[in-house]
Amino acid sequence: MPVDQHSADQRGVDRRDVLVGGLSALGGLAAGAAGGVGVARSGAAPAPAGSGPGAGSGSEADHATTVELAGSQRRPFHGEHQPGIMDAPQAHGVWVAMDLVPGADVTALQRLMRIWTQDVAQLMAGRAPYADFEPELTATTASLTVTVGIGPRVLGLRGVTATRPTWLQPLPAFPQIDRLDPRWSGGDVLLQICADSPITVSHAQWVLTKEARTIATVRWVQRGFRQGHAVTRPGETMRNLFGQVDGTVNPVPGRDDAVVWCGPSAPRWLQGGTTMVLRRIAMDLETWEEADPLTRDTSLGRRQRDGSPLTGRAETDAPDVAATDRLGLPVIDEFSHVRRSLPHEKGLTDRFLRRPYSYDDPPDPGRLTNAGLLFVAYQAELEQYLSVQRRLAEADLLNTWTTPIGSAVFAIPRGCREGEVLAQDLWA
Amino acid sequence: MPVDQHSADQRGVDRRDVLVGGLSALGGLAAGAAGGVGVARSGAAPAPAGSGPGAGSGSEADHATTVELAGSQRRPFHGEHQPGIMDAPQAHGVWVAMDLVPGADVTALQRLMRIWTQDVAQLMAGRAPYADFEPELTATTASLTVTVGIGPRVLGLRGVTATRPTWLQPLPAFPQIDRLDPRWSGGDVLLQICADSPITVSHAQWVLTKEARTIATVRWVQRGFRQGHAVTRPGETMRNLFGQVDGTVNPVPGRDDAVVWCGPSAPRWLQGGTTMVLRRIAMDLETWEEADPLTRDTSLGRRQRDGSPLTGRAETDAPDVAATDRLGLPVIDEFSHVRRSLPHEKGLTDRFLRRPYSYDDPPDPGRLTNAGLLFVAYQAELEQYLSVQRRLAEADLLNTWTTPIGSAVFAIPRGCREGEVLAQDLWA
Ligand code: HEM
Ligand code: HEM
Repeated sequence: MPVDQHSADQRGVDRRDVLVGGLSALGGLAAGAAGGVGVARSGAAPAPAGSGPGAGSGSEADHATTVELAGSQRRPFHGEHQPGIMDAPQAHGVWVAMDLVPGADVTALQRLMRIWTQDVAQLMAGRAPYADFEPELTATTASLTVTVGIGPRVLGLRGVTATRPTWLQPLPAFPQIDRLDPRWSGGDVLLQICADSPITVSHAQWVLTKEARTIATVRWVQRGFRQGHAVTRPGETMRNLFGQVDGTVNPVPGRDDAVVWCGPSAPRWLQGGTTMVLRRIAMDLETWEEADPLTRDTSLGRRQRDGSPLTGRAETDAPDVAATDRLGLPVIDEFSHVRRSLPHEKGLTDRFLRRPYSYDDPPDPGRLTNAGLLFVAYQAELEQYLSVQRRLAEADLLNTWTTPIGSAVFAIPRGCREGEVLAQDLWA
Repeated sequence: MPVDQHSADQRGVDRRDVLVGGLSALGGLAAGAAGGVGVARSGAAPAPAGSGPGAGSGSEADHATTVELAGSQRRPFHGEHQPGIMDAPQAHGVWVAMDLVPGADVTALQRLMRIWTQDVAQLMAGRAPYADFEPELTATTASLTVTVGIGPRVLGLRGVTATRPTWLQPLPAFPQIDRLDPRWSGGDVLLQICADSPITVSHAQWVLTKEARTIATVRWVQRGFRQGHAVTRPGETMRNLFGQVDGTVNPVPGRDDAVVWCGPSAPRWLQGGTTMVLRRIAMDLETWEEADPLTRDTSLGRRQRDGSPLTGRAETDAPDVAATDRLGLPVIDEFSHVRRSLPHEKGLTDRFLRRPYSYDDPPDPGRLTNAGLLFVAYQAELEQYLSVQRRLAEADLLNTWTTPIGSAVFAIPRGCREGEVLAQDLWA
C-alpha cells in the first residue's frame, strides 16, 4: 500500500479554510437566490397566531427556530448552469437513467431534449406541462430542481456532431473495492430530480419519464434522502447513516466555481456545464456496528460526535495532517478517509463538489439492512474526481465498511437561456 | 354486481359531519399534545432575525406561514394507547415485519418486547439506547413514533396464555381484486416507525431490528412518505400519487375514539389497543394517465382539484349521495370509491382510521413506474374494515387502476405505562 508523501504545507491550509463550511455557504446562497429559508430564534418572535395551545413547548431552546413552508419555494431553471448542482441540496432526490430505444438518432434525441426543456421549465415554475394530469401536485414546487445528463452512447448517435470527450465513458475499474452491479450502472441519459417534498420528486419523475417513453426506457432508478426539510437548521451539515457529519468540506459557490463548472478549454456544449459521477456505495451497518468510537473516528480522521477533525475542536477547523502525538505518530491516520481524500495539490486538482444522498432500501432475504450513499460528485474535469478515487481505492480505512455497487458517469450540459434547448450544442 | 340499497338518510349526514375534517383536527391535536407545530401568517410576524436577504420572497401570500424545526419535536411513548396511530401522521414511515426464529417461545417473545419497550421509550425521547452507536442520529427525534404489532402466529407460541382472537389471521381473500405477493404479506411481529425525517426513521429501524436479530428475522420492509414536513400547512390533507386529496374523512381524536381503540369487550391485552391492516396497493399511473378528469372525478365521487364531493363545494362538505342530476341519475356514482366506502350503518360499523403513505419504488424491467399506497387502517374491530373492504372488492370504479399486492393483519396491544412492557398481558 503506497503511503502518501505529500506534506501538510504543500497542500496549503489557507485554501482549505476557504473550502470549509461549503454547505453553510450553500444554505445562505439558497436563501438569497431562491427566496429560500427564513430562520429566527423563536424566542425573539411573538407567539404565532393560530398556534396550538402547546405549540413550541416540545422544542429545546437551541432548536427553537422557525422556517417557512417549502411548498411554494421555487428555483430558477434558466441560467448559465443547470440547477440542482451548486445550490443547496434539497431533502429528497431521485436519479433516473434511461436508455435510448434501438434506432434512436439525433432527431429522437432532439425531441427528447425539447420536451424535457419545456417540461422542466414548467415544473420548476409550478405550472403543469401539457401532458401533466396532476397539476395539483405540480403546484407544490418545494424547491424542485431537475438536472439533465448525457451518457457516453449519446455521442455516438448518428447525427450528433459533437465528439465524445475521452473521459465520457464508464469509470476505470477499481478492482480493490468495486463490486458493481450492472442494474445500478451506466445509462444513456440521466434525470436528477431533487425537492423538499418526496411527492414533488415522484410526480416530476412520472411526468418526465412518461414524456420520454417512446424515445427511451428506464434503465435504473435510485432514490435518496438527506435530513428532511425543516428538521435541523438550514445550513447544518447532514449526517449519513453511519452517523457521520458528511459534507463539511465542499466548494463554495461564487468562490470555487472553477472547481465545478467546465471552462473555455471544454467543448462548447460543456462550457458552463460539468461532469457528474454517481457511485452507489453500500454502507455495511452490521459491521460498522462492531467498530468502537475510537476506530470510527480514526478511520475517518474526524469525530463522529461533531464532525471536528481529530486535530481540531470545531467542525469547520481545518484538519492538521502534520500534527503528531506524543509518540510521534500522526494524529490523523495516514489511511483515514479524510487524509486520503483531501487535496494533495494546489489549484483545481483533487477537488470536487459532493452532493450525496442516503438510501435505505428493503434488505435482501436473510439480511437486516440495505443502506448506503448515493455518492454524487460534480467537477469541471473528471480527473479531479479520479485522482482522489484512485487514492481511496488504494487505501482508505473507511473501505472496511463501504462497497461501491453501482457506477455511472454523465456529462451535464450548460444551463439554457429562455428559448434554448438543453444540450442543443450537441447537434448545432 | 349488487347495487347498494342504503339511502342517504339511513346513513345519517349529521354523523358524517362529525367525521369530516379528521386530519385537520389531528393536526391540532398534535400541536397540543405533542408540543407540535406553530403556524403563523408570516405577514403578522416581524422579519425574523438572521434571515437571508431574499428570505420569504419566493413564497406566495397564501403559503406564507412558518413552522418550527422538527428536529427536537417529541411525542410521548407512555400512555393508554401506543403512539403513531391517532396522532398526526409524520412525513415518513417504514413498516417492518419480522418472523420469530424457529423454536422461539414465550421467553424469546418476552425478551424481544422488553428490549423494544425500553428502546422505543428511549428513542422517542431522543436518548440513545444501550446498543445505539449513533446517538447523534437519535438526538433528532423529529416526532418519532414506534408502534409495535403482534401477528397471528405469536398467539400460538408455547407459553402465551392469551388465546388468539378469531380475526387475528390473514384477511379473507378478495379474488376479484387481490394479486398478493407473499413478499409483502404476513409477519409475526411488526414495527411501524414514523418521523418527520427519513434519517430518524432509518436509524430507529436499524436500532430496533438489530436488537431483535437473535430472536427474529426481517420478513419484509415497506417504506412510505406523505407530503414532506413543513411543505404545506399543518393539517392540510395530503395528496396521493394519483393527485387525489386523500384523508379528508377520518375519525377525530377525542370524539371518535371508540372507532379506533378496543373497548371492554376485547381481550384484556387489546383493551386500549387496536387492530391494524396494512394493504400494499399498487396504483397504475400508466393507465390512470389515460383517464380524463371527468372519469377521475366520477370514479372517486370527489373532485381531484380540491377534494370536494361532486355534490358540494368545499373539501369538508359532506357528500350527498341522494342528490340526482336533471336526468334523475345520482350525482355521485353508485360505484364510485367514496359512495362504496362510506359507512352504510350508524355507529361504529364501517368506520375506521386511515393513515396511508405513498410509495414509489424502482420499476421492474420494462416498466415506467412502481408506485402505490401503503394503505394502513386501524379499527377497534376488524369487521369495521372488512365490511367496507368487501363492498370495495365487489365494486369500486377505482379498482380499475389499483391492485392490492400485499396484505397483513396485526393486533396492536394497548400502550404501556412507565414500568410496563409492551404486550405484557399476552403472558400475564
Ligand atoms: C459511503 C462512502 C463514503 C462515506 C460514508 C464518506 C464520508 C465522508 C465524511 C464523513 C467526510 C468528512 C466530512 C466532510 O468533509 O464531508 C468525508 C470527506 C470527504 N470525502 Fe468521503 N465518504 C464516502 C465516499 C467518498 C468517495 C467515494 C469519495 C471520492 C472518491 C469521497 C471524497 C471525500 C472528500 C474529497 C472529502 C473531503 C476531504 C477534505 O478535503 O477534508 N468520499 N467523506
Ligand atoms: C390505492 C387505493 C386507494 C386510494 C387511491 C384511495 C383514495 C381515496 C380518496 C381520494 C378518498 C376521498 C377523500 C377522503 O375522504 O380521504 C378516499 C376515501 C375513502 N377510502 Fe379510499 N382509497 C384507496 C383504497 C381504499 C381501501 C382499500 C379502503 C378500505 C377498504 C378505502 C376506504 C376509504 C374510506 C372509508 C374513505 C372515506 C369515505 C367516506 O366516508 O367519505 N380506500 N379514498
